[in-house]
Amino acid sequence: MDPTAVNVHRFRVRYGETDQMGTFYNARALEWFEVGRTELLRQLGVPYAEMETRGVYLPLVEAHLSFQGRARYDDELEMRTSVAQAGRARLRFDVAITRAEDGAAVTAGHTIHAITNQAGRPIRPPAWLGEMVG
Amino acid sequence: MDPTAVNVHRFRVRYGETDQMGTFYNARALEWFEVGRTELLRQLGVPYAEMETRGVYLPLVEAHLSFQGRARYDDELEMRTSVAQAGRARLRFDVAITRAEDGAAVTAGHTIHAITNQAGRPIRPPAWLGEMVG
Amino acid sequence: MDPTAVNVHRFRVRYGETDQMGTFYNARALEWFEVGRTELLRQLGVPYAEMETRGVYLPLVEAHLSFQGRARYDDELEMRTSVAQAGRARLRFDVAITRAEDGAAVTAGHTIHAITNQAGRPIRPPAWLGEMVG
Amino acid sequence: MDPTAVNVHRFRVRYGETDQMGTFYNARALEWFEVGRTELLRQLGVPYAEMETRGVYLPLVEAHLSFQGRARYDDELEMRTSVAQAGRARLRFDVAITRAEDGAAVTAGHTIHAITNQAGRPIRPPAWLGEMVG
Repeated sequence: MDPTAVNVHRFRVRYGETDQMGTFYNARALEWFEVGRTELLRQLGVPYAEMETRGVYLPLVEAHLSFQGRARYDDELEMRTSVAQAGRARLRFDVAITRAEDGAAVTAGHTIHAITNQAGRPIRPPAWLGEMVG
Repeated sequence: MDPTAVNVHRFRVRYGETDQMGTFYNARALEWFEVGRTELLRQLGVPYAEMETRGVYLPLVEAHLSFQGRARYDDELEMRTSVAQAGRARLRFDVAITRAEDGAAVTAGHTIHAITNQAGRPIRPPAWLGEMVG
Repeated sequence: MDPTAVNVHRFRVRYGETDQMGTFYNARALEWFEVGRTELLRQLGVPYAEMETRGVYLPLVEAHLSFQGRARYDDELEMRTSVAQAGRARLRFDVAITRAEDGAAVTAGHTIHAITNQAGRPIRPPAWLGEMVG
Repeated sequence: MDPTAVNVHRFRVRYGETDQMGTFYNARALEWFEVGRTELLRQLGVPYAEMETRGVYLPLVEAHLSFQGRARYDDELEMRTSVAQAGRARLRFDVAITRAEDGAAVTAGHTIHAITNQAGRPIRPPAWLGEMVG
């Protein structure tokens, strides 16, 4: 599996994702990041729903977001997501979101995830996961 | 238990609950209705978290909402919630939300809930539930 | 314009749209309905963002939802949305959401919208809107 | 004004804020942070709604969140929020959320905000704002 794989996902800002400033509400970016992870894992061959079925969970441990530019209702956005191992038993997803129309930066950030069982206890990453993320 | 019990709950509109029209986003009202149910059931003696522990779930079957007036960020709202049996194995919660300051109508509606086990299968309502809702 | 136009939109359930019952949280359906309206109006030739630019707003007056079946994280859903005039100065959007895989019913409902200016005051529907919705 | 002022706000986890892992969905923490800012600014004498009326906006520039422990539906949480100047024209809010029952850490983090006009352009912080945040 290509360790430098990047998922590119396009979506539109929903009306309910705006707030009274007229642009997307900040917490929604964290929800978009999760969509990016979902699409990247599907592209890498093991959808996250399948990972949970195998007993592997990736709870969020840290999130860092930088808000760079505005995006309005119905703007089409392009999200690029990549993943790498971070230390022994953690994964790091990097995300950058731009406006599809002109490439203007909207939001970027990264999230750190533990690798756990359903009860939230850290587990040794299975071999297939290591191969997936390179 | 008083079958005519009404829960009165006050809360403020969150910034993230507004949209670009400057008032609360409609889907949030359905989330508020759920807060009203939670507070009413607590008042009636069996918090919903406790009900799920006892194996009784109340999945939403129908929701009807009427949007009557504006509410802005940080407005204090007053929500009145009541419950009644609806047919054999259903509950109906009625909700009315007004602005605390002047009593202006904001949103009203009702939700219909099945009474099920965790798997979503209808169950005969336990006696304690019948007593609770009158 | 074809008054019987139906928009068909496919999307996946986001992780953040689930709740602890393991299926999508009910309020999210109302957010999905809004996505359906957005996609239908784009298909009919005047995106809603463009309508607001023209000074025409469609605030939600009523919403009715029926929850028919489960949908889980990452399930692909198919949403069919249509629109019709409802009385003098109102629009009604009908929505039906099924699981793309097997066509199982997930949620259906309709929303009633006033036709207003930015201040929320009812306006006479412009001719282009009447032509759009048939 | 006391520059070391801390706002303490209690609230309960909503059902709609959980996800299928049975605990609160991560993006909701960022929404809670905003509630903490709202309550702190009210305590400091100028509610944020009033600030926007005065033409002062505090758009989010950066957010950093650390997820430390679980919180379940209906758990009562205690959020402590404080604010300080960060450089010339920025504010930093620090937030820590614990379970009210036992003080267990749930989430902590901070957000960095620009000080802008409605159009999003940086402005010199008005004197009253400097006095407020110490």
